[in-house]
Amino acid sequence: MNIQNILSDNAKNMRRSAIRDLLSVANRPEIISFAGGFPNPATFPVEELKEIMQEVLEKESVSALQYGPTEGNGKLRTLLADRYRAQGLDITKDNILITTSSQQAIDLTSRIFINPGDTIVCGLPSYLGALQAFWSYQAQPIGVPKDEELEIVVKTLIETGRKPKFIYTIPDFQNPSGITLDLEKRKMILNVARKYDLLIIEDSPYREIRFEGTAYPLMYSMDNERVMLFGTLSKTVLPGFRIGWVIAPEEIINRLIVAKQSSDLCTPVFDQAVAAKYFEKGLFEKNLEKTIELYRRKRDLMLGCFEKYMPKGVSWTKPEGGLFLFVSLPEGYDTTELFNVAIKNDVAFVIGEAFHCDGSGKNTMRINFSYMGDDMIEEGVKRLAKAIKEMIQ
Amino acid sequence: MNIQNILSDNAKNMRRSAIRDLLSVANRPEIISFAGGFPNPATFPVEELKEIMQEVLEKESVSALQYGPTEGNGKLRTLLADRYRAQGLDITKDNILITTSSQQAIDLTSRIFINPGDTIVCGLPSYLGALQAFWSYQAQPIGVPKDEELEIVVKTLIETGRKPKFIYTIPDFQNPSGITLDLEKRKMILNVARKYDLLIIEDSPYREIRFEGTAYPLMYSMDNERVMLFGTLSKTVLPGFRIGWVIAPEEIINRLIVAKQSSDLCTPVFDQAVAAKYFEKGLFEKNLEKTIELYRRKRDLMLGCFEKYMPKGVSWTKPEGGLFLFVSLPEGYDTTELFNVAIKNDVAFVIGEAFHCDGSGKNTMRINFSYMGDDMIEEGVKRLAKAIKEMIQ
Repeated sequence: MNIQNILSDNAKNMRRSAIRDLLSVANRPEIISFAGGFPNPATFPVEELKEIMQEVLEKESVSALQYGPTEGNGKLRTLLADRYRAQGLDITKDNILITTSSQQAIDLTSRIFINPGDTIVCGLPSYLGALQAFWSYQAQPIGVPKDEELEIVVKTLIETGRKPKFIYTIPDFQNPSGITLDLEKRKMILNVARKYDLLIIEDSPYREIRFEGTAYPLMYSMDNERVMLFGTLSKTVLPGFRIGWVIAPEEIINRLIVAKQSSDLCTPVFDQAVAAKYFEKGLFEKNLEKTIELYRRKRDLMLGCFEKYMPKGVSWTKPEGGLFLFVSLPEGYDTTELFNVAIKNDVAFVIGEAFHCDGSGKNTMRINFSYMGDDMIEEGVKRLAKAIKEMIQ
Repeated sequence: MNIQNILSDNAKNMRRSAIRDLLSVANRPEIISFAGGFPNPATFPVEELKEIMQEVLEKESVSALQYGPTEGNGKLRTLLADRYRAQGLDITKDNILITTSSQQAIDLTSRIFINPGDTIVCGLPSYLGALQAFWSYQAQPIGVPKDEELEIVVKTLIETGRKPKFIYTIPDFQNPSGITLDLEKRKMILNVARKYDLLIIEDSPYREIRFEGTAYPLMYSMDNERVMLFGTLSKTVLPGFRIGWVIAPEEIINRLIVAKQSSDLCTPVFDQAVAAKYFEKGLFEKNLEKTIELYRRKRDLMLGCFEKYMPKGVSWTKPEGGLFLFVSLPEGYDTTELFNVAIKNDVAFVIGEAFHCDGSGKNTMRINFSYMGDDMIEEGVKRLAKAIKEMIQ
């Protein structure tokens, strides 16, 4: 039968991940890949997990292997609420829904708020997975070129009858740019949201991976009525568990629970029980320290190699945390072209255009520094610099 | 801010699970609950999992704790393909997508095919979680009162310009009825689908839990162009892992992969690695045998108690497998009313109306026999019979 004829409008609007397709070219073993957003396996707490899993199977198998509540493991939600209260959030566990990855948090939030044709305001660049979710519900993400232009973008949309459903932002070590919003910018976004009665999505997968300096307050701690905060274990410790969470006013949590019921009933129950024990034993903090140390060293190494090898005209961000640098070639150059040259030189990255909902950013690219071994970082930057020189000189 | 004002049409169309709400009343410890669809914890292979998890952490932690491919663990897909080929399916692993529970299979399938207002043809009764998914995409499920009426229902919908997007069916030990479609009925459904060019969803969570008699062929084995087959580990062995799968033509699998990318990127990777090893070691078959034995005994016990205690006028199905009986009171009685009487008598079930997309079935209820201990089954049926007698005599 002809499947094309019966596809939904949602399906026709879905876009395959450019990252996924690029990575499929980049998986030859000789390629040094700065493309993925993968944590380093050296940070996986294997020995601790061995112990905890035995303990969960020994003591809690009846509940940990059974169906669980849609809202998630009660202990895990309580522990998370405690952690966030320590950061100034006025919440209880009833403000928390455990999701199957924070990608699902984005998906369910899109599902309960987006009608076809709705606009969403986001960064230029912004997280590709969020853009994909918005597109899959036939929303139109509208990129704000500079933070200062947020109000004018929102105002223009409202004046043309296209009031955005929410503002999507990653305030800490943004993916892909690595940039963090300072306190003034956070206040400015909140003020715009209040003035025009908008919801804010504060997507926060990287916040805890801070190498230096002091964190700015979570936007949720400054307004617990119109901010939804998303978190995840995937960047700090365990991508393979797919555990994320939403923090939001209870009214929104209740809507998300109904949406999650028909999506996957509940997040994997065993993984949640293990995660709860992991937090409870204080192992998260211990491991996070080591992770931060490792990634700080890798960032320094990466920045050093960029200084050493990159030709003039190339610029890059100097992130205080997270997993990524964002790199710009001189205007007029196209990193999609560069990608092909780079692959021939056995090095890969993600083209920046993929993160720009308006098709801009053609001269940019995202570089991951968390995943590759130290010697690979140096060799990879050398290869990348060589590819860039081939193109721009 | 007022959330109601910005909800999507999808969200407005979502229905909270009646089961979930009923269960929240029914969780007093003194209540004997026949309501859930829970496997018996005695079937959880705790000791085997202890060993396998240590092995996975020992040998595969680098991949098992990392992000994984959206389509799922390659070994698990290969092992599943082998199992289904042995049942006559002409497939490879490229026809299989691992989903975060088979509920997600229903959700993603709905997402890529359903536009608001579309019709879906399903049973009366039918699986509530599927109805919830269809409603959440603003589809209208249309129930077929008797199997023989499938063609006339489909024909009428087409003649009135409302051609269904697919036929949703659970051919083996249906939830909630426990009924299995014989070969003639399977052929009939396939013929209707071919005649009117429709897709069929063959939802198959219970098929392997057969107590006696011979299985009829999977509909997918009779037509691999227009059938999508859903499977899961949740009923046979491990609900807490949330591992399901879709088997479908590659063109559909590729669409589902794109939809899954923006839903949750990938199904929990560690759980998949453990599940693959569990199949590989032949433990699934061994455990399934024990599970079948246990549930057969419980079904026999339940049927015996029904014979013994139920008043005249009450009838029930005698399933050859699965987890449920479906019970009918004489016409005119309402099990929602009975539910309140039953709760006072400390016994719970699910009202049959919840499974009827047209609001019919008011005199029916679903009874689970897999979860409760043997003595609880007898005592629970006594209490239920007492509640029924209070109402109908």
